[in-house]
Amino acid sequence: MTTEWVLTLSCPDRPGIVHAVAGTLAEHGGNITESQQFGDPASGLFFMRVQVEASTGRDELVAALTPVAERFAMTWELDVVGRRLRTLVLVSKAAHCLVDLLYRERYQGMPVEVVGVVGNHPDLADMAEFYGKPFHHVPVTKDTKAAAEGRLRDLVAELDVELVVLARYMQILSDELCRDLEGKVINIHHSFLPSFKGARPYAQAHDRGVKLIGATSHYVTGDLDEGPIIEQDVERVDHSRAVADLVALGEDVERRTLARAVRWHAEHRVLLDGHRTVVFR
Amino acid sequence: MTTEWVLTLSCPDRPGIVHAVAGTLAEHGGNITESQQFGDPASGLFFMRVQVEASTGRDELVAALTPVAERFAMTWELDVVGRRLRTLVLVSKAAHCLVDLLYRERYQGMPVEVVGVVGNHPDLADMAEFYGKPFHHVPVTKDTKAAAEGRLRDLVAELDVELVVLARYMQILSDELCRDLEGKVINIHHSFLPSFKGARPYAQAHDRGVKLIGATSHYVTGDLDEGPIIEQDVERVDHSRAVADLVALGEDVERRTLARAVRWHAEHRVLLDGHRTVVFR
Amino acid sequence: MTTEWVLTLSCPDRPGIVHAVAGTLAEHGGNITESQQFGDPASGLFFMRVQVEASTGRDELVAALTPVAERFAMTWELDVVGRRLRTLVLVSKAAHCLVDLLYRERYQGMPVEVVGVVGNHPDLADMAEFYGKPFHHVPVTKDTKAAAEGRLRDLVAELDVELVVLARYMQILSDELCRDLEGKVINIHHSFLPSFKGARPYAQAHDRGVKLIGATSHYVTGDLDEGPIIEQDVERVDHSRAVADLVALGEDVERRTLARAVRWHAEHRVLLDGHRTVVFR
Amino acid sequence: MTTEWVLTLSCPDRPGIVHAVAGTLAEHGGNITESQQFGDPASGLFFMRVQVEASTGRDELVAALTPVAERFAMTWELDVVGRRLRTLVLVSKAAHCLVDLLYRERYQGMPVEVVGVVGNHPDLADMAEFYGKPFHHVPVTKDTKAAAEGRLRDLVAELDVELVVLARYMQILSDELCRDLEGKVINIHHSFLPSFKGARPYAQAHDRGVKLIGATSHYVTGDLDEGPIIEQDVERVDHSRAVADLVALGEDVERRTLARAVRWHAEHRVLLDGHRTVVFR
Repeated sequence: MTTEWVLTLSCPDRPGIVHAVAGTLAEHGGNITESQQFGDPASGLFFMRVQVEASTGRDELVAALTPVAERFAMTWELDVVGRRLRTLVLVSKAAHCLVDLLYRERYQGMPVEVVGVVGNHPDLADMAEFYGKPFHHVPVTKDTKAAAEGRLRDLVAELDVELVVLARYMQILSDELCRDLEGKVINIHHSFLPSFKGARPYAQAHDRGVKLIGATSHYVTGDLDEGPIIEQDVERVDHSRAVADLVALGEDVERRTLARAVRWHAEHRVLLDGHRTVVFR
Repeated sequence: MTTEWVLTLSCPDRPGIVHAVAGTLAEHGGNITESQQFGDPASGLFFMRVQVEASTGRDELVAALTPVAERFAMTWELDVVGRRLRTLVLVSKAAHCLVDLLYRERYQGMPVEVVGVVGNHPDLADMAEFYGKPFHHVPVTKDTKAAAEGRLRDLVAELDVELVVLARYMQILSDELCRDLEGKVINIHHSFLPSFKGARPYAQAHDRGVKLIGATSHYVTGDLDEGPIIEQDVERVDHSRAVADLVALGEDVERRTLARAVRWHAEHRVLLDGHRTVVFR
Repeated sequence: MTTEWVLTLSCPDRPGIVHAVAGTLAEHGGNITESQQFGDPASGLFFMRVQVEASTGRDELVAALTPVAERFAMTWELDVVGRRLRTLVLVSKAAHCLVDLLYRERYQGMPVEVVGVVGNHPDLADMAEFYGKPFHHVPVTKDTKAAAEGRLRDLVAELDVELVVLARYMQILSDELCRDLEGKVINIHHSFLPSFKGARPYAQAHDRGVKLIGATSHYVTGDLDEGPIIEQDVERVDHSRAVADLVALGEDVERRTLARAVRWHAEHRVLLDGHRTVVFR
Repeated sequence: MTTEWVLTLSCPDRPGIVHAVAGTLAEHGGNITESQQFGDPASGLFFMRVQVEASTGRDELVAALTPVAERFAMTWELDVVGRRLRTLVLVSKAAHCLVDLLYRERYQGMPVEVVGVVGNHPDLADMAEFYGKPFHHVPVTKDTKAAAEGRLRDLVAELDVELVVLARYMQILSDELCRDLEGKVINIHHSFLPSFKGARPYAQAHDRGVKLIGATSHYVTGDLDEGPIIEQDVERVDHSRAVADLVALGEDVERRTLARAVRWHAEHRVLLDGHRTVVFR
C-alpha cells in the first residue's frame, strides 16, 4: 500500500542537499511527485518541500532521514499528504471568515478539521453548530482576560489543537500565549500591512483616500501586527465608498486571504525564514 | 461646427445642482454625452463632470455658466475634450516612466503634449530627443539646488507648462515650489503608500516580507509622500525575489500607475476633495 | 419622511433627456445623490440610473414622470433603494454558489430575499433550512421534465418571484420558460464565455492548456450560453492543475462572479442594450 | 571560475530521475540554486528545470549528463543562465509590442538580443534604428508572399536567429515555415483564446458584450491560433468602451503578455507537453 508523504525542511545552504534527500528517498522506494527548493541569499538558509509516494512506513522513513537531517543540521517535518490539521477557530461577531473556513472544510477539501469554535460573543454559535462544531462561549472582559486565556490554553491542550485561527477575533492574545503557540497561530489583519496598523484600519484607509484596500494573513508573534506575512491581497475601491462600504468590501478580501494562508499552512507549504515566510505554492 | 466640451465643478452639496447645470447646457444647445456626479457625505461637497457636445463658442458658454457657478459657489473649469495639456517631465536616470509617457503621447493619444524633459542626469537625453522633445540637463547638488529650482520655475513659465510629472525624479522639490504649483505636479512613489514611506521602499518591502509590491501616483504637496492619491496598483511577488528583482518588477507597476494618473488628470477626471481625490473614470 | 428612490430608464438618445428628468425630480423636491448616464453610439440608445431622495410618494412621482417617459419613449422603472427582490434559487448538488448567496443575504445586506430553494437533488436541503429557506425537491428526469418545469412555474407564481438564480443548476430550461421569464433569470456559466461553451468547460480548458480560467454570469435567453453578459472574472492557473483542481479553483471565481451579478441586478444597476448590458456600478 | 547553468529536460516519468540528475550534478561540483519539477499524469511525462552553479566546463557537463539522458530517454538542453537569445522581431504598423520589447532588452535585462526587425510596412523603422537595430522592409502582397517568406528564411539563417517574435505582425506564415521553425516562433494574439479566433477579435468581443478583454501569447504551429499557449492575461472593460477603446486598452495587455512569454522562453522556463506548455516561473 502506497502513502503520499510531504517532507519539509530548512537548513544552512551548501552543496549536496537535494542529492542527499533525493537519494535517501529513492533508496526507500520513494517516487517524487512534486518538489520545490529555495536558497535565500539573505539568510543563507535553504528550504525544500517534497511530496513523495512510497510504500515505506513512517518509522522506516524517519530512521532513514534522521542521519541526513543531522548531517545538514536540518529543521524538518514529515507528514501524510492531506492529513487534516486539528484546528481551533476564534471569533467575535463577524461571520465572514468563519463561514468561509467551515464551508471550505466541508465542501472544498481544505485539509483542516475544525475541532471547536471559540467566541467571546455568542453570535456565531448557530453557524458552528450547523457544521457540527462545538461552540465555546468564552467572554472576555478586562477582569476575566487571564481566566479566558487559561480556558483557551485548556482547549488547545484537551483538543490536541495543532493550529489556531484568529478569524476576526477582536481580542489581543497575551505575549506569553503568542510565544507558547509561535508558528501555530494565524491571524487575518484587515489592512495591507504595514499600512494602517492598529485599530480601525478601514477608517484610516478611507481618511487617507487609498484606491485599493487590502488584507494580510500572518503568523502571530508577541509583536502585534508584525508577525511573518503568509499572504496578502487587495480589492479596488474608489472615492464613492464610505467607511462602511470598505468594511463590507473588505470582508471578501479578508476571507479569501485567510483561507489561502490556512490552506497553505495545512498543506505544509509555508516555511519560516526569520521574520519572513517561504511559501511553496 | 460642433465642439465637445468637458465641464468639471465642485461646490457645497444641495438640491438642484444637476438640474441647473443640465438646464443651462440644454438652453445653449448642448447634448450631454457623458456625465458623472458624486456627493461626499464626509466633506459635504458635490462633484460633477459633464461632457457635452455644442456648437456654442467658449465665451457664450462661460457667460451662461457663470451665474450658475456663482449661485452654487462652484469651483469650476471648462475645457475642450482632448486638448493636450502642456507637460514638463522631470527625470533622473531610470527610463521606464519617461519611455512609457512618450510612447503613450505619440502612439496612444494620451492628451498631453510633452514640451520638455528635464533631467538632473544626462542619461535620458537620447530618448527625449528621439521623440523630438527638448532635453534640459539641470544638475542638482546641495549648493546648486536653489539655482536648479529657479531654472525649473523659468521653464514652467517660458513653456506655459500646465502639468509637471515627476517620472522617478530623485530630487525633492522645495515646499515653496510645491505650494506654488499645487494641483499641477504628479509624482509616482514606488510603494503602496502609506506603506514604506521615505527612502528605499523596495528594500523596506523586502525586509518586511510582503507578498505584493505597489506604486502610488499622487499630487505633490509640501508634505512629502502625503499628497492626495490619484491611483495605486500592485504586483504579486514571492519569497524568491531579491530587492533587485522587486525594483525591476516594480517598474511595470510604476509606469502603468503613473500613466493612468496622468491620463485621468489630463482628461479632467480628477477633482480634489480636501486631501482625497474624486476620480470619475 | 424621506425615501430614497432609484429610477432607471432607457430610450432613443436625443438632447434634453437629463434636463427633463432632473427638472421633474427637482420640481418634486428630489435631491439627486447618485446619477449615471450612457449613450450607446452603436444602438442609438440612452441609459440613465438616478438615485434621488424625496419625501414624495410613489404615486406622485409616477404621475410626474409618466409624461416625460412618454415624450422620450422611455422604458423605465422606479423602485425603493434597498428593497429586497423576491428571489428563487435553483441548485443541483454543488454548494458553493448557494452558500455564498445565502451568506450575502443574511450577513452582507445583499438586497434579495430568497423565498425558496429548488433542488433537482436533495443534497442542499440542510443548507437552505439552516438559513430558514423552504427547500423544494423537484427531481428531473427525461420523463418528468415537463412536470418539473410546471412545478417551477407554479413556485414562481405562488411566491411572487421577481428573480430566478441558476446557482449551478445542471438542468437546461425550456425555450418557452426562458422566454416567459426573460430578463428575470441569471445563470452562472463555468467558463469565460464564449470560450468553452457547452458541457464540461473545465475539461475543455485543461485540454486547451489555458493559463486563466473564468466564469460568466449572464441573463438566460432561449439561446443557450448566449444571453447578455452581466459580469465575468478569471483566476490564474498553471500547468500543474488537473481538471479536478480547475473545478475546485473555479468555485471561487464562480461564486464571486454570480454574487456581483445578482447584487447589481437587485440594485437596478443592469440595463439591457440589445444582447449586451449596461452596468452602472 | 564559476558559471551558472540552466538544465531543462523532459522524459517519461519514473522513479529516480531527480536523484540521478542531482547526483550527476553534485559529482561534478554543481550547487543547485533553483529547481522545479512536474510530473504530468495526463501525458505520463516528467519535466525538470535546474539552475546550478559549477566551475565545470560545458563539455564535461554534457559528457556527464549524456548517459543519464539516454537512460531516461530525455529531451534536454543545457545553456548558460542569462545568455541572450538571438531574436528576430516581425512587425507591421502597430508599435506597442516592438517598443516594449526593445525597452525591455535595453533597460530591463530581458535575455534576448534583437538582431533585426522585419516590417511588411516601413512605419517602425525609426524606432528600430533608435535602438540600434537593423530594420528590414519586406513588403508582402499576394504575389510576393513566397518571395517575402524566402527573405525571412534567409534572415533567420544569416543572423543565426534562435527566436522569432511576431509582435503584431499582420501576415500569416505558411504552414511549411511554421513547421520548420516549430517551437521557435512566439505570437501574440489579441484575444483570450480560444474566444474570438480569427480576424478582428476586439470587434467580436465588443459585439458579444464581454466584461474582460484578453491577450494570448503562444507558440506558432501550422494550426492558426491553436498553438501551445504560454501566457494569457485580461483587462477589465465596461459597456462604455467602443471597439476603438478596446483596441487601445488591449495594447497594454498584449504587450505585457507577450513580454512575459518572451522572457520565460528566453530563460528556458517553458517546456512543451504535447499541445500544452509547462511554465516553471
